[in-house]
Amino acid sequence: MSAPQRTARPRPHPAGTRRRESLRGLLVEAGLDALLVTDLVNVRYLTGFTGSNAALLVDARGEDDTVLATDGRYTTQAAGETPELRLLVERRCAPELLGVTTAGRVGFDSAQVTVDAHDTLLATARGELVRAPGLVERLRAVKDAAEIDALRLACAAGDAALAGAIADGVLAPGRTERDVARELEERMVAAGAAGPSFETIVAAGANSAIPHHRPSDAPLAPGDLVTMDFGALVDGYHSDMTRTVLLGPSAPWQEEIYALVDAAAAAGRDALRPGVPTSEIDAAARAVVTDSGYGEHFVHPVGHGVGLVIHEAPAMSATATATLEAGMTVTVEPGVYLPGRGGVRIEDTLVVTESGAEPLTASTRDLVVLG
Amino acid sequence: MSAPQRTARPRPHPAGTRRRESLRGLLVEAGLDALLVTDLVNVRYLTGFTGSNAALLVDARGEDDTVLATDGRYTTQAAGETPELRLLVERRCAPELLGVTTAGRVGFDSAQVTVDAHDTLLATARGELVRAPGLVERLRAVKDAAEIDALRLACAAGDAALAGAIADGVLAPGRTERDVARELEERMVAAGAAGPSFETIVAAGANSAIPHHRPSDAPLAPGDLVTMDFGALVDGYHSDMTRTVLLGPSAPWQEEIYALVDAAAAAGRDALRPGVPTSEIDAAARAVVTDSGYGEHFVHPVGHGVGLVIHEAPAMSATATATLEAGMTVTVEPGVYLPGRGGVRIEDTLVVTESGAEPLTASTRDLVVLG
Repeated sequence: MSAPQRTARPRPHPAGTRRRESLRGLLVEAGLDALLVTDLVNVRYLTGFTGSNAALLVDARGEDDTVLATDGRYTTQAAGETPELRLLVERRCAPELLGVTTAGRVGFDSAQVTVDAHDTLLATARGELVRAPGLVERLRAVKDAAEIDALRLACAAGDAALAGAIADGVLAPGRTERDVARELEERMVAAGAAGPSFETIVAAGANSAIPHHRPSDAPLAPGDLVTMDFGALVDGYHSDMTRTVLLGPSAPWQEEIYALVDAAAAAGRDALRPGVPTSEIDAAARAVVTDSGYGEHFVHPVGHGVGLVIHEAPAMSATATATLEAGMTVTVEPGVYLPGRGGVRIEDTLVVTESGAEPLTASTRDLVVLG
Repeated sequence: MSAPQRTARPRPHPAGTRRRESLRGLLVEAGLDALLVTDLVNVRYLTGFTGSNAALLVDARGEDDTVLATDGRYTTQAAGETPELRLLVERRCAPELLGVTTAGRVGFDSAQVTVDAHDTLLATARGELVRAPGLVERLRAVKDAAEIDALRLACAAGDAALAGAIADGVLAPGRTERDVARELEERMVAAGAAGPSFETIVAAGANSAIPHHRPSDAPLAPGDLVTMDFGALVDGYHSDMTRTVLLGPSAPWQEEIYALVDAAAAAGRDALRPGVPTSEIDAAARAVVTDSGYGEHFVHPVGHGVGLVIHEAPAMSATATATLEAGMTVTVEPGVYLPGRGGVRIEDTLVVTESGAEPLTASTRDLVVLG
């Protein structure tokens, strides 16, 4: 598999203008004159700016009243990444933006801003501060073509890493969980990723019954289920995949729960389509597990949205209230965990299409028995 | 250099009991009956629990009324990592803890809890919710011996990576900034780190004038200053170091700003001692740079505390109000950046001792000219 292409930075961000204009539509709907964007991922999404201290005031009146703030370390970088935006150079980005804007009703993300930071904002705000959580996240949930391309490359890096690790005999008795995690991470980087998209999970034997087990120096052994949950970061986008392989010889209970989880994952994927509540994806996968009597051992939601952060909108749990739209990228990852014995999880990243969903993860879901 | 030792996980956390008892002292001082701890790093510090969803209620009355909450994914892990604590298994950890506690005045970290989360807490709280920011961070700022050992290993992994990269000719014309970053990160892992402690900065030539430049595919060239700001993660603790090397031939202006930054760093380090306000460390280093006429090119604070997160208490800027204590671990990292030409930064991690400070970073600070 060829390595994903890399993009040099800094560079201007052509999608930012379009996204800010979409956001202005949401501001008008919400009766807001402006939105104060304080989450750095949201700032990056709306501007392409990647510094570690920034805030953005998106004014509903247009670009002339929209201002990016950052501190002196990033003046040069901001000029390169966001040449089209007015720049305010201040260490206290968000309060200073409120001090200069003439917007009357200014939304802030009450799901991101802390109680203390809110006090600081109130001290400088000249207009009215209004709770407006999740507006940018709502835009982010539906990906454009460039974002899907980045996720496709990130997923391909994960696939390449797993295929290489299997081909090179990394998954073998005597190697440790940490060895396997390190091999996967190095191979994703060799395949063009900037790094892993989260702390790689490798869980062998009884550890595979711990859904979020951290890799230890425990050696793999014959008869182990080995669950690997990992992903790659490409151009800021996170892939997420899980495969469980078996170091032979296999036992009937292992094959049974593997087939069950495989069927549950297929049911979840098959239910993906625009207009469907995400809670129905959870229900579709969970029904398969529950009908086989293993319901109590599927202890987490079926999946989550994925993009500029590893867990983002839409939520996919039984109690989630989101509805799928074309362009959303989500994971489907049912699992069954038998404490003290072992577990299986199978996870793909997919993009919702007009008629269903396309997997971005390409690794086989058939049970791979090694050794 | 021998590789740092690794610690298998999960395991109980002997320091937790002692730290919770220290926190109870702060609660009594603050007139609180309990503290709701919602930040995951603080939960880990106080309990050793490393799951991704948790909250802790530390009751001033003692361990019997102190409860850890997490969700069903982590039941097994919590039993292994924190066998001594009462466990509440609930997805909504923090609100459910408030629903069960009998404590009257419950502090919460208003610097961490969002405006929306605060509303959720108010809905379940039976007692009074009181703002109490930064109590655990205050404890965390002063490290115990085991924490300093972990930071020492993390610093050693960074030193080993740089020494190996220099010895193996990685810092050479034609190699890219990304190559160098990847080599440093892989070598830190080979030296026992779990991974890099933050996104590695490698900035060559004119890019070295950008303090937080992200590594690009730009190749190194003769005459480049190459600034590398990087660190290793060991047992949850973050090291942080910067060295700037020169690919020969050198120019007089490069040698001049290197000597200047070296002197500023020495002045900062020499000022470290218990009882000194951290703002005086910034002032000591900055005076050297300002006296030479380069003051406007030292565009960031002199350093920061470092430990379970890469930037933590004590703050070290000109406006910081903290005072140094023995056991604090901090960075000293002055820099001079000449836009369009290049820059130099030199950074060590140090631990404050009874009489001064001990560098944990061991790499030479002499100007290294390669090629």
